[in-house]
Amino acid sequence: MSLDVELRPWESLQGLAQARDPKELEDFLGTLTPSEAVRALLRLDRDDQERVLTLLSPDQAANLIEDVPDEPAADIIEQLSTEDAALILNEMESADQADLLGELDQEDAEAILAKMDPEEAKDARQLIEYDHDVAGGLMITEILAYPRHIRVEHVIRHLSRHADAYADYDLQTFFVTEPTGELMGSIELRALVLADHAKPLAELVQTDIPSVPADTPLEQLEDLFETHELAALPVIDERRRLLGVVRYSDLVVALAERAEEDFMKARGIVTGDEIRTMPVAVRSRRRLSWLSINIVLNVMAASVIALYEDTLSAVIALAVFLPIVSDMSGCSGNQAVAVSLRELTLGIVKPFEVAHVWLKEVIVGLINGLALGCLLGMAAWLWKGNLYLSIVVGVALAANTLVAVSIGGTVPLILKRFGVDPAVASGPILTTVTDMAGFFMLLSLATLMLPVLSISPAP
Amino acid sequence: MSLDVELRPWESLQGLAQARDPKELEDFLGTLTPSEAVRALLRLDRDDQERVLTLLSPDQAANLIEDVPDEPAADIIEQLSTEDAALILNEMESADQADLLGELDQEDAEAILAKMDPEEAKDARQLIEYDHDVAGGLMITEILAYPRHIRVEHVIRHLSRHADAYADYDLQTFFVTEPTGELMGSIELRALVLADHAKPLAELVQTDIPSVPADTPLEQLEDLFETHELAALPVIDERRRLLGVVRYSDLVVALAERAEEDFMKARGIVTGDEIRTMPVAVRSRRRLSWLSINIVLNVMAASVIALYEDTLSAVIALAVFLPIVSDMSGCSGNQAVAVSLRELTLGIVKPFEVAHVWLKEVIVGLINGLALGCLLGMAAWLWKGNLYLSIVVGVALAANTLVAVSIGGTVPLILKRFGVDPAVASGPILTTVTDMAGFFMLLSLATLMLPVLSISPAP
Repeated sequence: MSLDVELRPWESLQGLAQARDPKELEDFLGTLTPSEAVRALLRLDRDDQERVLTLLSPDQAANLIEDVPDEPAADIIEQLSTEDAALILNEMESADQADLLGELDQEDAEAILAKMDPEEAKDARQLIEYDHDVAGGLMITEILAYPRHIRVEHVIRHLSRHADAYADYDLQTFFVTEPTGELMGSIELRALVLADHAKPLAELVQTDIPSVPADTPLEQLEDLFETHELAALPVIDERRRLLGVVRYSDLVVALAERAEEDFMKARGIVTGDEIRTMPVAVRSRRRLSWLSINIVLNVMAASVIALYEDTLSAVIALAVFLPIVSDMSGCSGNQAVAVSLRELTLGIVKPFEVAHVWLKEVIVGLINGLALGCLLGMAAWLWKGNLYLSIVVGVALAANTLVAVSIGGTVPLILKRFGVDPAVASGPILTTVTDMAGFFMLLSLATLMLPVLSISPAP
Repeated sequence: MSLDVELRPWESLQGLAQARDPKELEDFLGTLTPSEAVRALLRLDRDDQERVLTLLSPDQAANLIEDVPDEPAADIIEQLSTEDAALILNEMESADQADLLGELDQEDAEAILAKMDPEEAKDARQLIEYDHDVAGGLMITEILAYPRHIRVEHVIRHLSRHADAYADYDLQTFFVTEPTGELMGSIELRALVLADHAKPLAELVQTDIPSVPADTPLEQLEDLFETHELAALPVIDERRRLLGVVRYSDLVVALAERAEEDFMKARGIVTGDEIRTMPVAVRSRRRLSWLSINIVLNVMAASVIALYEDTLSAVIALAVFLPIVSDMSGCSGNQAVAVSLRELTLGIVKPFEVAHVWLKEVIVGLINGLALGCLLGMAAWLWKGNLYLSIVVGVALAANTLVAVSIGGTVPLILKRFGVDPAVASGPILTTVTDMAGFFMLLSLATLMLPVLSISPAP
């Protein structure tokens, strides 16, 4: 084993899985960072993944699987026996259980739930009902609530005595209930500790805190957290009884995940996450679903060119400028898309402010269009020495830059207003419209000026 | 004032600023969410922004300005008198003070620091030295540390008695020091509350927690937080004395900001953030810096087309397919870029695994290239009825899809390995190389098959 230092982590993990030594496996995983452990696990084949998870204690296996993205995690869990899967799921936090079970086939999920600890299964069943981007999908159910008449010192003593039982609980915020079971309000742990310990909870409870139904979307949660500077937001049912709590840290993580998703969508990974360890068929199908829409749009846009075959055959040099006008307008338009998406996320602009955004874009588009038009005109002049050709390509690019920033700046707002995801749809709409406009402007302008353009240099 | 309901928030804010009524202004801001308040403030002209901030109490002004992105926030602060600016900065958290001062001119920052509360200024001066993407730039200095012999009950009593003084402190984690002043370890507030209150801190302190120097980068902080499941990570100097603490929530926000920056960079907003309320000259210059590099690359790529003017004039229909091959290869390549950037962020792939990624991409590229090539070939056949033309455009797109996913998948890894930001540089490199390869393959293949391509249909 003196060659061990030469092995990559996944090769070591494979070796230890096949040697079936739980102790050494556990020690080895302890030397890896979580992302290294995930990377190594995902590299193994299905049998070795199963070996690793069953060799570890359910608690350790749960820790490992919690760091794996949901979809590959579900693939791994599906390979285990339902008993092993249930043991591992028992050890996970309620929100993570629900995320993972939500990725499984209905049948598999039911089979695992049936073998789980009944308490855990009940919570998981409830949470699985919610989308992952609403309060119910983010909340955890491991929280403490006390009746209003209890005194601070009792709570502190109770916590101190039952420390083990609450090890997995979020103790940042406590909730206080009315005798009817309705939520009265909350107390932060720090406020509890800083308070006079003889007081009943009713005297320090914050009753002006907001509470939300389980179907509250992320944006609204974000606004509430920002306005009230809370660490946790209670989720209630229609009778104002506490269902769970959304922690600010979980919301921030969910928002970051959505931003990451938008990033992927904007680059054409739209129908689900992709990790390269997934089967080729899944990866290829997902990417193609996007590409096949784009090729149709592309053919549509390029068909504008076909209308001008005569002009093109007279001035063949125009063919060189078609892709340049298309690409550069795409660049300018995408900058405007990026700023609009960002301003929408930050809440600095609202979907109805199309005119405001358009005015702001037009000014920048005029300046940048002029600059780019001059640059391209100069390049054309250096190449062909025909001033009229320079003017045609320069004017077409300048004008189309204006079109591109106008479309790029406003389309995300309009899409958002009509409930369409701007991260997915802005790019293709932008490309199609600006390509059509650019090809049309370049070629129709060239057709108008054909007499002066087609003076070929002496052969 | 019965028309008030018709006014947009920024119009109401403008009216209240000009009416100079602090009470009404404060009440109005209380009705807005933080993002609404920021949006309204950014819409005002400079004089009105100044009025709003000086009418509010320094504490309220600090709350408002903390929600504004750093760069516009600095622009607003620069308009105030140094006295007013200092009063507002005094009320901000140490890390926010440093972020804001870091955006100002050196001179302005010095002037404001000179008027600030000496304690606050000292902390801010220290934090301003650090980049915003290392531990020193993220840490806050409002923390509590106790000597090791103190008992739990004393700490709890101390906190309870001085509740007001610590209102702005992070009380999640306490630190315990050796008699020499060196950091001994930490205690979570929940552990403190759950502990036997008669014990000295030395008996419950966690000594195996990691601590980091101030120049530790974000990725390493993320790994440490994940490995140790901490709420806060102490930052120490070379003599192991406590400098401050990085909270997990602040790290998550910083990571989300970096992801957002990457998103902007990938779409061509590269030299600094853009908000549309910034001056036109700044916005235009920043966007142009990126566009002018791209136009040079674009002209370079398109110059390949100029080498095949004879082929193009023989088969003018090819001009229609040039932008399609360019755009579609860009789409396929960008999908591969997105997956690579994501896997790099998640740590699922490491920069040296170029060959592994390439193999994974080649398989998907083959399938998708074949599918797209068939689609485009069919479109060409429907249009011109020339089988050879269909074959040329189909094969060129299929082959170039393979090139595009190979470049798109591997370039981010290679750039990362050489310390170049893959979010900025991957796109232009991908577009330039795949455009050149695509134009070359389409046109050289067409040149080879020219005899069978140039059979024009009967006029």
